[in-house]
Amino acid sequence: MGKKVTIRDIAKRANVSVTTVSQVLNGKGNRFSKSTCDKVFKLRDEMQYVPDFHARSLIMQGSVSTIGVLIPDLSEPFFGTFVEGVQKVAREQNVIPLVFSANRDPKLEKEYLQQMVSRAIDGLIIASARMTTDTIKQALGNLDIPFILFDRNNAQEGTRVQTDDFHGGQIAAQHLIDLGHKKMVYLSVDKDTENFQHRLSGFEKVLKDNGINFDESTDVLYSELSREGGEAAAKDVVASGATAVFCGNDDMAIGLLKGLRELDVRVPEDISVIGYDDISLDEYVYPRLTTVHQPIYDLGVGATEILLDRLNDKDVDEKVEKFPVHLVERESTARPAK
Amino acid sequence: MGKKVTIRDIAKRANVSVTTVSQVLNGKGNRFSKSTCDKVFKLRDEMQYVPDFHARSLIMQGSVSTIGVLIPDLSEPFFGTFVEGVQKVAREQNVIPLVFSANRDPKLEKEYLQQMVSRAIDGLIIASARMTTDTIKQALGNLDIPFILFDRNNAQEGTRVQTDDFHGGQIAAQHLIDLGHKKMVYLSVDKDTENFQHRLSGFEKVLKDNGINFDESTDVLYSELSREGGEAAAKDVVASGATAVFCGNDDMAIGLLKGLRELDVRVPEDISVIGYDDISLDEYVYPRLTTVHQPIYDLGVGATEILLDRLNDKDVDEKVEKFPVHLVERESTARPAK
Repeated sequence: MGKKVTIRDIAKRANVSVTTVSQVLNGKGNRFSKSTCDKVFKLRDEMQYVPDFHARSLIMQGSVSTIGVLIPDLSEPFFGTFVEGVQKVAREQNVIPLVFSANRDPKLEKEYLQQMVSRAIDGLIIASARMTTDTIKQALGNLDIPFILFDRNNAQEGTRVQTDDFHGGQIAAQHLIDLGHKKMVYLSVDKDTENFQHRLSGFEKVLKDNGINFDESTDVLYSELSREGGEAAAKDVVASGATAVFCGNDDMAIGLLKGLRELDVRVPEDISVIGYDDISLDEYVYPRLTTVHQPIYDLGVGATEILLDRLNDKDVDEKVEKFPVHLVERESTARPAK
Repeated sequence: MGKKVTIRDIAKRANVSVTTVSQVLNGKGNRFSKSTCDKVFKLRDEMQYVPDFHARSLIMQGSVSTIGVLIPDLSEPFFGTFVEGVQKVAREQNVIPLVFSANRDPKLEKEYLQQMVSRAIDGLIIASARMTTDTIKQALGNLDIPFILFDRNNAQEGTRVQTDDFHGGQIAAQHLIDLGHKKMVYLSVDKDTENFQHRLSGFEKVLKDNGINFDESTDVLYSELSREGGEAAAKDVVASGATAVFCGNDDMAIGLLKGLRELDVRVPEDISVIGYDDISLDEYVYPRLTTVHQPIYDLGVGATEILLDRLNDKDVDEKVEKFPVHLVERESTARPAK
């Protein structure tokens, strides 16, 4: 077994200082000439240098670790709660979380990722429905920075936390069927976002297993994934003739409650509404929202714990940790009128 | 006029490299001996070295600027919207915002501040009701990092964005008096937080100017500054005999709506409720919340624009930018029953 290559070895071969090599390899090479940077990168590849996480961490920022948290939108209550879970663990373990909210903009997501790398971040939690493992690895370059995926599409591998969206859809369907509903619609976002697709699949399966008609071409309604989107969909919901609506997330459901109220449609007397997520607001809207609970805070806690485990021991196996979902029955669902 | 002292001069006198001086002065000195660090700091003071913002920025991180945003609690909708405003300007100007949520913990606030400094952040937006200008300057050390204060107590100076809390309190009082209320209470948080105190002063002044009794010892109710806190205060509100409640912020008001509903007290028929902030949720609760509008998003935009101005020109004068407040009348306030 050969001796592990260090930045000292690279510095010697390149005839530059150890600091220069360290800075160049850590993305802080702007003040060096292009030829110096090129030389260092070439030697790194030639000599098959593998950065040592602890060494890099010590050189770049002292003993406090930082983790980057990349989320789609900070103003969504879902991600606010997720970040709270991250922060709880971070506080306990004396780690600094840096939160980047990319406004659902793929270009920004990439840019922020590169920023985190150049800031010598120790590990990453990435919640993006768009980025594939390949995109992420590309952005990380040759740096061996551990990352955890969350709320993802299926085009990924790697360590990640997940909830069972298919089962969540099943739970919503079973609840509405148990109440006696026979005509139901699914209100969601018209984007190729796999978790919403899984919710629909689970929902549809239980309906069909119970002999209830469900035609994706007419019984799936689309709107923006926001409270405004849910509100705007109220007319379509009424026009569908459904006695119950399963919403892709709680934000949409809360908007729908408002839209229906403005049309003088009573919930749950005229139409039952069930959401997805169980954000804290559900308790404060009227009627209080029945929903499929995702352990959002626990997901933040879990993702952070797994990441810190990997920071302490890079050789832990990649794994997928699943978090259970369950029904939370409140006031927005009831038996249909007729 | 003497020549400006550079880190080159310090390096020469200290007999260390320019990189060493740069790293030590930028809070990245952990890998150098204590005696080296002490020597560098001593010479900096002796030679009256003033760091050059642009030089530091270029050395430490290339051409992309970063601004640190320190807020009390990310899961409060108020600060979510504020950060959205910050992010909008940051995106337009190609600046990276790093968001730190300190969970209203003074120790964490200090720690995060130090982290930002050691990460060669270019400028700071600080929203904390606790930190004084002195605390901040101490944390920043001798580094000349521009910062903007927001949502602050009065123990501060420096550039800051503000809204007029006293006037906000006046607006709330005038609205309730116009509706005919004669017995009103103020529900807020029992902490020495000056902006809530100002709201109370404005409220109380208008009541007294209109010959309406208001006794701070009985007509100010206290609870936690949260939806849960507002909900818990519902009993006290009913016991007070008031026909209208002015809440310190919308979160409390939204919680109070829920608490009153559970006690079968009708809003606004039995009791009128007015909040403060105008968070987006106000439209989605029932009844929709009447409130005093703060331009939260604009405050985020304004704070960021002022900060970036100062980054581009350090000699701009310190200033206080005031943002107006106004009444937003919705459904939670009405004439008293009798």
